Amino acid sequence: MQRDDLILISVDDHIIEPPDIFVNHLPQRYQDDAPRLVHRDDGSDVWQFRDNTVGNAALNAVAGRPKEEYGLDPQGMDEIRPGCYDVHERVKDMNAGGVLAQMNFPSFPGFSARMFATEDSDFSLALVRAYNDWHIDEWCAAYPGRFIPMALPAIWDAELCAAEVRRVAAKGCHSLTFTENPAVLGYPSFHHEYWNPLWRALSDTDTVMSVHIGSSGRLAIPAVDSPPDVMITLQPMNLVSAAADLLWSRPIKDFPDLKIALSEGGTGWIPYFLERVDRTFEMHSTWTLQDFGGKLPSEVFREHFLTCFITDSLGVKLRHDIGIDNIAWEGDYPHSDSLWPDAPEQLHNVLESCSVSDSDARKMTHENAMRWYSFDPFAHIPREQATVGALRKAAEGHDVSIRSRSRQLTEPVDKLEAFRARARAATAAAQ
Amino acid sequence: MQRDDLILISVDDHIIEPPDIFVNHLPQRYQDDAPRLVHRDDGSDVWQFRDNTVGNAALNAVAGRPKEEYGLDPQGMDEIRPGCYDVHERVKDMNAGGVLAQMNFPSFPGFSARMFATEDSDFSLALVRAYNDWHIDEWCAAYPGRFIPMALPAIWDAELCAAEVRRVAAKGCHSLTFTENPAVLGYPSFHHEYWNPLWRALSDTDTVMSVHIGSSGRLAIPAVDSPPDVMITLQPMNLVSAAADLLWSRPIKDFPDLKIALSEGGTGWIPYFLERVDRTFEMHSTWTLQDFGGKLPSEVFREHFLTCFITDSLGVKLRHDIGIDNIAWEGDYPHSDSLWPDAPEQLHNVLESCSVSDSDARKMTHENAMRWYSFDPFAHIPREQATVGALRKAAEGHDVSIRSRSRQLTEPVDKLEAFRARARAATAAAQ
Repeated sequence: MQRDDLILISVDDHIIEPPDIFVNHLPQRYQDDAPRLVHRDDGSDVWQFRDNTVGNAALNAVAGRPKEEYGLDPQGMDEIRPGCYDVHERVKDMNAGGVLAQMNFPSFPGFSARMFATEDSDFSLALVRAYNDWHIDEWCAAYPGRFIPMALPAIWDAELCAAEVRRVAAKGCHSLTFTENPAVLGYPSFHHEYWNPLWRALSDTDTVMSVHIGSSGRLAIPAVDSPPDVMITLQPMNLVSAAADLLWSRPIKDFPDLKIALSEGGTGWIPYFLERVDRTFEMHSTWTLQDFGGKLPSEVFREHFLTCFITDSLGVKLRHDIGIDNIAWEGDYPHSDSLWPDAPEQLHNVLESCSVSDSDARKMTHENAMRWYSFDPFAHIPREQATVGALRKAAEGHDVSIRSRSRQLTEPVDKLEAFRARARAATAAAQ
Repeated sequence: MQRDDLILISVDDHIIEPPDIFVNHLPQRYQDDAPRLVHRDDGSDVWQFRDNTVGNAALNAVAGRPKEEYGLDPQGMDEIRPGCYDVHERVKDMNAGGVLAQMNFPSFPGFSARMFATEDSDFSLALVRAYNDWHIDEWCAAYPGRFIPMALPAIWDAELCAAEVRRVAAKGCHSLTFTENPAVLGYPSFHHEYWNPLWRALSDTDTVMSVHIGSSGRLAIPAVDSPPDVMITLQPMNLVSAAADLLWSRPIKDFPDLKIALSEGGTGWIPYFLERVDRTFEMHSTWTLQDFGGKLPSEVFREHFLTCFITDSLGVKLRHDIGIDNIAWEGDYPHSDSLWPDAPEQLHNVLESCSVSDSDARKMTHENAMRWYSFDPFAHIPREQATVGALRKAAEGHDVSIRSRSRQLTEPVDKLEAFRARARAATAAAQ
């Protein structure tokens, strides 16, 4: 398949929330207490909510930046591409990157919206609903067929969470962002019957639980003085852990329609993982009493899990060991792992080097995403306007040039030292 | 290659220590304080040392048992194969399993002999030396060419540890068992200059630091109520973490001759890992300031790391993505992952199904182990007597029949409940 003929649907990108998300959807009585975006004297913009301050850090919005400027320094909204927070600019960037549709994870509330879990459940639920309504009815609805809608969970209450899943599903939203490990966050684990209402709601509404790396809040660092490269290398490990935890769990057996996406988990480790779970079953199920009704764990995995990759030539090479119906591509705009705007070039090279058939390529680039997330962009956009080539043609003249920092920080940031301070803080907090 | 023509050297098996290990090598003044094997009323045998009691649990000695009896129940020495603790019986079992040579990790002291780290450094060092002398001069020396000697570390003191490495190297021992994460054990991390004397001693003496899964003492369980299958699936994760921690570390750059074996880590995940570290380098080294002198992390990995597998057809299939000089086979006798006495059959099937050349097979089955561990069995045993076929012929008549439990436990053990109790205890201890 020619590069320009690819159709790309990404199941993992990110919104840097604009300041007005709560204006239209949060009840008036909560407006004064809502999180707000504050511009600070050092030029950075941070979200403030009660005692929490969340900066735009963690390599969150570097699309279009030279690598030399990657780091963990806080940033101002004036330093990042408008496509991070403005849906009209986002679609232009998507066009320039050849991307038909995206699914957008939240940023400042956290992947499981834990920031919204206050002691006042009514207020918390109002925040979750307001965010979801803004996301579905404003952001996604602005460009039908361009966004797979995704809802935040009411992470603090399984019944409320189930109700919210049903509420947004009625509006066409079939993806829920969730944590890779509720136990680490202080909630019952995946093994507790507490979550049954959520599993039931997800199953009833064909909603995928999308579990993003980093969503447990646990840093995968062996030691407080491990270099940052160690953490980056190990980022998917918590998601490997989640995959194992869920695969061997009771919900997987009790809810045959349950669907889970391992977002930004990569795919190259999946064949090894499947070999290991089958061997674990073969060697130990006599005493661990696991029973999948005659199936192997690897078969059960393929019934329930979608695996996702940004760039992962090994995973593409081993696509049939993973399961060709279980792989979806990710763009990761505007994070530092994104290849925007050159992802089509990179992806096409990998498809070519692995001699991927057109049929396999269609599954990984868009068909699997459409089926797993009950999403049909072609109801809105003709196929011939959905290709990399057609979208880029529509984006002609859009500025995608690499832009360096637009302002000088008041104090220079040593990125390595900033990482080390975070590691020390995270380690101290875990003790 | 025919199955019977294979020559098998295993770089990972285990001793269940016999009661007399300290008799000949510990100074008289310490004899009364030495760890001792105690037979209990319930029929089990446990090691007692000060406040510590270590049972023969954790699936440690099930060779020859039906799978239905795997579990975590404590065992008596009369319930396990004599080959677990008697070197003459061990060699018979090795012959029956077609294994020319083994490297044997310790059991009750822990993989890093942390049990011996008392407040009395002299006493601790006497224990470590006594164990090492017993292991090298009695166990291994009883059958020249049949055992790759391995030393315990003086984990509590880098200088003493370095001295012990040099002392045993002079006796021909070029393997040191060590922890996958000293920081978790309360010692300085791999990144601290504290360990420099050890790195220097290992480099000077061509000694491999053999890091076994489980050697940090950290259980890889997402939640206290995760099923045991989750822990078993995730066992190699701490070793993935160690591989990342060491690969990006300063010692790897400062000590070009440093060698590390990832014992029982498996190999199927290595190609993914290498792709990930190279991409991490490509995307982030500008701000993390990593510098391997023009090499890629994957190249540096192959200079320093030996990867090991028991049965892992994916790893054999991807052997050239790993590095054909970086793979060694493991027997894991007498643990539950061992395929004894049928490992040659299983391994040969994998080699055949992956169309492995004779040259590649020789590297993975014995040549790599010999080179990495400076071990030459053929100085003692002619090649024609070293093959699977020849060894098995020598073992004709040796009883390898599956034997069930030889005694009734005084109280039946619910293995699942035993696991859960351990998980609760480990979680409580970590909090």
